[in-house]
Amino acid sequence: MTDIAVLGYGTVGSGVVEVIDKNNASIDMKAGGGIRIKYVLDLRDFPGDRVESILVHDFDTILNDPDVRIVVEVMGGVEPAYSFVKKSLLAGKSVCTSNKELVAKHGPELISIARSKNINFLFEASVGGAIPVIRPINSSLTADPILQIKGILNGTTNYILTQMADEGWEFDKALETAQKLGYAERNPEADIEGYDACRKIAILSSLAFGKNVDYENIYTEGISKITALDIVYAKKLGCAVKLLASSVCEDGRYYAMVAPFLVGSSHPLYGVCGVYNAIFVNGESIGDVMFYGSGAGKLPTACAVVADVVDAAKHLDKHIYTFWSDEELKLTGIENATRRFFVRVSGQSGSRDKIDSVFGEVSYITVDEDPDGFGFVTGPVTEKWFNERLKEIEGVKGRIRFE
Amino acid sequence: MTDIAVLGYGTVGSGVVEVIDKNNASIDMKAGGGIRIKYVLDLRDFPGDRVESILVHDFDTILNDPDVRIVVEVMGGVEPAYSFVKKSLLAGKSVCTSNKELVAKHGPELISIARSKNINFLFEASVGGAIPVIRPINSSLTADPILQIKGILNGTTNYILTQMADEGWEFDKALETAQKLGYAERNPEADIEGYDACRKIAILSSLAFGKNVDYENIYTEGISKITALDIVYAKKLGCAVKLLASSVCEDGRYYAMVAPFLVGSSHPLYGVCGVYNAIFVNGESIGDVMFYGSGAGKLPTACAVVADVVDAAKHLDKHIYTFWSDEELKLTGIENATRRFFVRVSGQSGSRDKIDSVFGEVSYITVDEDPDGFGFVTGPVTEKWFNERLKEIEGVKGRIRFE
Repeated sequence: MTDIAVLGYGTVGSGVVEVIDKNNASIDMKAGGGIRIKYVLDLRDFPGDRVESILVHDFDTILNDPDVRIVVEVMGGVEPAYSFVKKSLLAGKSVCTSNKELVAKHGPELISIARSKNINFLFEASVGGAIPVIRPINSSLTADPILQIKGILNGTTNYILTQMADEGWEFDKALETAQKLGYAERNPEADIEGYDACRKIAILSSLAFGKNVDYENIYTEGISKITALDIVYAKKLGCAVKLLASSVCEDGRYYAMVAPFLVGSSHPLYGVCGVYNAIFVNGESIGDVMFYGSGAGKLPTACAVVADVVDAAKHLDKHIYTFWSDEELKLTGIENATRRFFVRVSGQSGSRDKIDSVFGEVSYITVDEDPDGFGFVTGPVTEKWFNERLKEIEGVKGRIRFE
Repeated sequence: MTDIAVLGYGTVGSGVVEVIDKNNASIDMKAGGGIRIKYVLDLRDFPGDRVESILVHDFDTILNDPDVRIVVEVMGGVEPAYSFVKKSLLAGKSVCTSNKELVAKHGPELISIARSKNINFLFEASVGGAIPVIRPINSSLTADPILQIKGILNGTTNYILTQMADEGWEFDKALETAQKLGYAERNPEADIEGYDACRKIAILSSLAFGKNVDYENIYTEGISKITALDIVYAKKLGCAVKLLASSVCEDGRYYAMVAPFLVGSSHPLYGVCGVYNAIFVNGESIGDVMFYGSGAGKLPTACAVVADVVDAAKHLDKHIYTFWSDEELKLTGIENATRRFFVRVSGQSGSRDKIDSVFGEVSYITVDEDPDGFGFVTGPVTEKWFNERLKEIEGVKGRIRFE
């Protein structure tokens, strides 16, 4: 029998309790022994709830109980999660967490403590919800250097962009609907400005490349400036707008970024809609591998956490190697990355001569929904060249990169 | 330093040597210590080749060398692979294999020996080439009962079907091209008649449901009867023809089958083309998860084998639980499965009255390429009902199930 404690009885925490209760027999079998929830930590009381009798308010009760071998941290946020997790690991308790902020900020240190104690710090649920991607990177894609990771890592923004495309809604209305349905938080900034996707690609890149990618160094652009009109143009171009997070190793240089992109209909990420996530991994010899599934949600995320608990229970006294050193991975800026850009401009076609003279050959596009404006698509140019030239154009209403 | 031996220096075997040579440093790091290829077993000689000095013709050399802790079996076929693998495991050597025939036929026994010896029998490369799917099922999807697996598991047939659709070729020409390109074997029966996909879905189903699925009990139909005209009709219906392997747990009953299906354009498997494979897994709480990647090829398959070697090296004296008992999983026949069918009929529409009277409401479809015939699509009916009624129709040229 392995005793565990769950820190936080919110959405994911209650999901973890529910999944363990419901699938008790098969989980015990797969863990090679019984899993028992001995404590749930929360500041609140839950009278009448299934966890009432095991609820504690003081973390030290858990820390000081040697029976607790695995701590599940599903509180979110950096503090007090970080202190609790660090103390748990130092006390020889393995930790399983869904907390991407914690992992992105303190991953290498917490892994290093786990290694020194011959226990485990596992965080499958921190990226991609129910989708197995952390463990495959750590355990299955080990024969071959990973060259590129690219994915839709945030379900909230993908839901919003999908609704904008399907319903023709403006961003604000799609966000409001997402909030009503529980897909977006009341303070949606972390999702819509790309910070959440940024932390997740930092975690995946650190694991793939073995060194620490500081998420603060990743160029990050959200979707809050995408308009219904942008989506109309995107459709006319045969594209969908997707918030892509990516990192690339090219000739020994590393690049990472998060931004909305125009994705063509033949691209495998084009059809990834709603709250679904998908992550491409490209290896030198294996080529493209893709992982797809529900990127969020109470039970899918809880299942990923519980799978980590099962793995931790199977490896109570054995560290499962994770390759994420605290040495910083130096990122190269994106200014020399080359791609095509879509630009939306207000005003009649009088300005086309200017655009032609500044950008050279571009293709123009008009849509009925924008009688007072038009769009154009550049050839492949560098970010730097594009940004400098764009300043010369009047009436620019927006620009989106092509994938 | 962990010594390994490679049994078979064919396509996959030489790929394994190549991958280990090329990625030596990172593989050693991930394995937590050096990996050295001490022997390669093959009946042939390879003068001047990199393995010349470590080549042996007698398996006993490997079996009797206590330094060899991991045996890589990439010979294919059931014998002598089975004898070599069993002897290796009984001698306390972990085994990593890409051999789906061996795994499908003797999986439970070999896993049970590995468990009793506290070593490992790993076979990620036996299904889906480079795609991590066996380890995710064993280690990541452990919190939640798996209800369904469905996938494109054979790259050869998917390549042939894709070529038929893209080029308008007949089956024979597409097969010949696949053979020329090395995507199909000279004796292609195992691929084109679905036997390969059948063994793979037997392996995945056994792991997902925990009991042994005998591949001989799985209803299996190949693609050799699919014609260029079928594909023309499929396109008109907005569908692609895909060889799908699937298994389902429904109300405590288990179903499994392999057959060509008509897959609509909104289905995620519609866009899986060429030699790519994709596998859907549906869990009660996690919903759909999909794994996608290169389903075959020398280096992708070799990478999957080498990742197993890394995992075996990390768990030299620890069995990684695999849930595949030798108790047989009783499959329910497919005769009561309900679905729509497409039927192609020769002759003019004179027979439509008969079809209407036998099948009730159907929709008819004609294409320019088939001036002397037509097709029809039934409503949702059981396999049994359909097969009985179909006998009453004259001039039936083919039928394909709808996914």
